[in-house]
Parts: sequence; C-alpha cells; structure tokens
Amino acid sequence: MEVSRPLDALNKARDKRVIVETKGGKQILGKLKAFDIHINVVLDDAEERANGEVSRKLGTVFIRGDTITIISPAE
Amino acid sequence: MEVSRPLDALNKARDKRVIVETKGGKQILGKLKAFDIHINVVLDDAEERANGEVSRKLGTVFIRGDTITIISPAE
Amino acid sequence: MEVSRPLDALNKARDKRVIVETKGGKQILGKLKAFDIHINVVLDDAEERANGEVSRKLGTVFIRGDTITIISPAE
Amino acid sequence: MEVSRPLDALNKARDKRVIVETKGGKQILGKLKAFDIHINVVLDDAEERANGEVSRKLGTVFIRGDTITIISPAE
Amino acid sequence: MEVSRPLDALNKARDKRVIVETKGGKQILGKLKAFDIHINVVLDDAEERANGEVSRKLGTVFIRGDTITIISPAE
Amino acid sequence: MEVSRPLDALNKARDKRVIVETKGGKQILGKLKAFDIHINVVLDDAEERANGEVSRKLGTVFIRGDTITIISPAE
Amino acid sequence: MEVSRPLDALNKARDKRVIVETKGGKQILGKLKAFDIHINVVLDDAEERANGEVSRKLGTVFIRGDTITIISPAE
Repeated sequence: MEVSRPLDALNKARDKRVIVETKGGKQILGKLKAFDIHINVVLDDAEERANGEVSRKLGTVFIRGDTITIISPAE
Repeated sequence: MEVSRPLDALNKARDKRVIVETKGGKQILGKLKAFDIHINVVLDDAEERANGEVSRKLGTVFIRGDTITIISPAE
Repeated sequence: MEVSRPLDALNKARDKRVIVETKGGKQILGKLKAFDIHINVVLDDAEERANGEVSRKLGTVFIRGDTITIISPAE
Repeated sequence: MEVSRPLDALNKARDKRVIVETKGGKQILGKLKAFDIHINVVLDDAEERANGEVSRKLGTVFIRGDTITIISPAE
Repeated sequence: MEVSRPLDALNKARDKRVIVETKGGKQILGKLKAFDIHINVVLDDAEERANGEVSRKLGTVFIRGDTITIISPAE
Repeated sequence: MEVSRPLDALNKARDKRVIVETKGGKQILGKLKAFDIHINVVLDDAEERANGEVSRKLGTVFIRGDTITIISPAE
Repeated sequence: MEVSRPLDALNKARDKRVIVETKGGKQILGKLKAFDIHINVVLDDAEERANGEVSRKLGTVFIRGDTITIISPAE
C-alpha cells in the first residue's frame, strides 16, 4: 500500500468494510462511508460485535473520533 | 446513503429519532434537533433507556459532545 | 422547540430550572443564569441531589464545562 | 445575581471565600484571588477539607483549571 | 542516531517494523507506513501481540494518535 | 497577596520551595525554577514525598502541566 | 541551574540520560535525543525499568507527550 499520510489509508478504505475499535472495548463493523480530521467516522450497515458474534445491528452509525482507537479492514 | 463528511450523516438524521450512547454507558433516545462541530447534541422528547426499558423521561436534553461515543438511528 | 444550534437550546433554558449531570455522577439542580461555548455553566439557587433527595445547598454555583455530560429541564 | 457570562460569576466572587471541588474528590476552601479563562484559580488562606473538617492548611494555592469541577460560595 | 525533533525519529523508522503500545495496554507490530503531527499512525502487515505471541492479524491498520503511548523498533 | 492573574501567583513563588501535587496522587517538593502557560513546571532540588517522608530524590525535575492538580508553598 | 522556561531544562538535559515516567506507571530510561512543545520525547539506548531492574530493552523509543508525567535526570 502506498500511503504518505495516515488519512490516505482511511481514504483507500472508503466503501470497504472495516472494524472500528473503541476505548470502551467495543468492535463496530461496517462499510466506511465518511471520516474527517478528528477521525469522526460514519459506517453503513454497521453492527456491534462481541466475542466474534454480532450483538446488535446499528444501521448507519456515527462514531465520535475521540472514542476510536484502531481502524482495520474487516476481511 | 450518500455522505462525504461525517456531519452530513448527522444532518440527514435531523428530526429523526436517534440513540446517543455516552462514555458513561448511558443510552439516550430522542429526536435529533441540533448538533455542532463539537458534536454537542440537542434531542427533543428524549428518554434514558437501560436494558431496553425507559428509565427516565428527559424532555429536551443538551448532551455535551465530549461525552458521546456513538449516534445511530432508533428505528 | 425550534433550535438550529445546540447552544440555542441552552439559551431558551436561561432563567429556567435545569438539571446538570456530571462525569462524576452528580446531579446539580438550579436556575440557569449563564453559559459559554465551553459549556461552563452558572446556576442560581443550586442544590446537589442524590437519589431524588437534596443532599446539599450550593447557592450560586459555577460548573466547569469539561465535567458536564447532560443538561435537561427540571420540571 | 445578574451574570451574562459564567466568568462574570467568578468575578463577583473575587475576594470572597469559595469552595473549589476537584475531579479527585477534594474540597479546597479559600479566598478567591485570581482566575483565568482556563479556570486556573488562586486561593488565599486555603485549606483542604474532608468530611466537613479541615484536613490540611495550604496557604496560597494554585489550582489547575483542568482538575476543577465546581466552584461555589463558602458561606 | 541524529534527530533534532521527535518526528525525525519516526521518519527514520518509516518502512521499518515497529511496536506501537497503546493506553489500553495493547502491543501492535507492523511496518510503519505513515504518521502525522497528531501521531496518528498507519502500520502495514500489522498484528496484535499479547504475552509475546501473535493474538490477531490486523493487516493495514490505522491507529489514532491519542491512544498511543510508545513507539519503538521491533528488532 | 496581590495577584490579578493565576500565573502571577506562580511568578511570586519563583525560587521558593513549593509542593506540586499530581493526578496520580504524588507530592513533589522542590524550588520552583520555571513554568509556562501549560503549567509545565521545573523544580530544583526536588524530592518525592509519601506520607510526610521523602521517598525519592529527583534532582532537577520537569513536571508536565497536564499531570498537575495543585501547587502550594512548602513552608 | 539557570532556566527561565521549562523547555530550557529539557534542552540542558539533551544527550544526557533521563528517566521518563508515564501515566501508566512505567519508568523509561534513556539518553534524551529530542523533544518538542507537546513534550513528545525521543530517547536513545532506552530501557524500561520496573522495581529498579531493567525489564525490557527498547532501543530508540518515541514517547508521546500526552502519556508523560515527569522527566528527571538518571544519575
């Protein structure tokens, strides 16, 4: 992957499914639709996952950047 | 949904019922009336929910952005 | 209620009794006299409430915005 | 009390005895000598109080705004 | 090593494998691809490690700067 | 004491011995040599104190403002 | 020591061995190579120490300022 700035990596992940992990220990999976410099993120078709199982359907979810620790691809 | 910035998603949710989750583990449901770039949010006809049950009626509530983790639609 | 920005809602609550909740789990009731963009708040005739009972009279109280989670009407 | 901004309330409390409460759960009483927009505060003749009793004399104390939750009059 | 500013050190580590440690106590290893002034970081071929063992493959991961404590070389 | 801004009080304490208390509950005593608007502080001949006893000699110590709660005179 | 600003003290410690303490309670020793106004720090020949013993060799380490509480000389 060729990225020179961290947000380039998020840009390449747009419209792909990602896993967003939060300070509170949650995992939220969904299609990355939007993000900004604060790393506020919007996921589509999102669901919360606990212990590898879907625990809750969230639909279109706005996640505040301040609560996010890691964003990685959901293969 | 077509959103290019995260706040577009909040804008589309205006006047719809949403669930706001907080760092302290609360869920607050209500009609999204206003938000700003700090993600300070105002909900109308809001109620706090615990374990799927309404625990408290809040009316028109101002929620400080710093305390918010996730905003999703309340279908 | 017609509000387009979150601080409009606080402005409408001026001189009315509100409940301010804090990160530390306190509830402070009082008449909303002033607020600013940091959500620093001043309440008049304020009292701390625990388990629905007044636990302490505070008089005119300054509450630092950073400690505030929710502001709602005290009906 | 006539205040239009929260810092007006602090200004009116200048040279009066106040109680400053901190995120760590301390209460510090003293005469309010100075404050700034970060709510950094200087108290004169200050003392720490625990369970309604003076636990420690502090003299002139500088309290960092970030640690402060509430400032109220010490009647 | 000749570095005059902290980000020079990160720049020298570009395309090398590093260990990123987080406030939550995680260790994430991977090839450093990008960083910015907030210390937001992108790692390639990343994996989470617990007790010296790989606990999870992450692929290309975005780590929010706010959650990072230490970045050191993975020799 | 005549101070109109909180940093005036720190300025008057320059070259005097002070007690710096931290969010983590430490007390560090030393001669106040420097401070800035973030309340980053440098103490000379500093020592850490626990339960009224010197627990560790620190020499010249830099204390990050973000970790400081209270600065008071060490009489 | 003659310092008028806190960062002067760090500047004098450049290329000397220091102890960096973190919010998480770690001690990291190493030669101070670089720092910036956020107190992001780079140490060379660094090692983590627990209970006075070296627990881990870190090599050249980048420490995020936000996680640092105290920097003192390692005599």
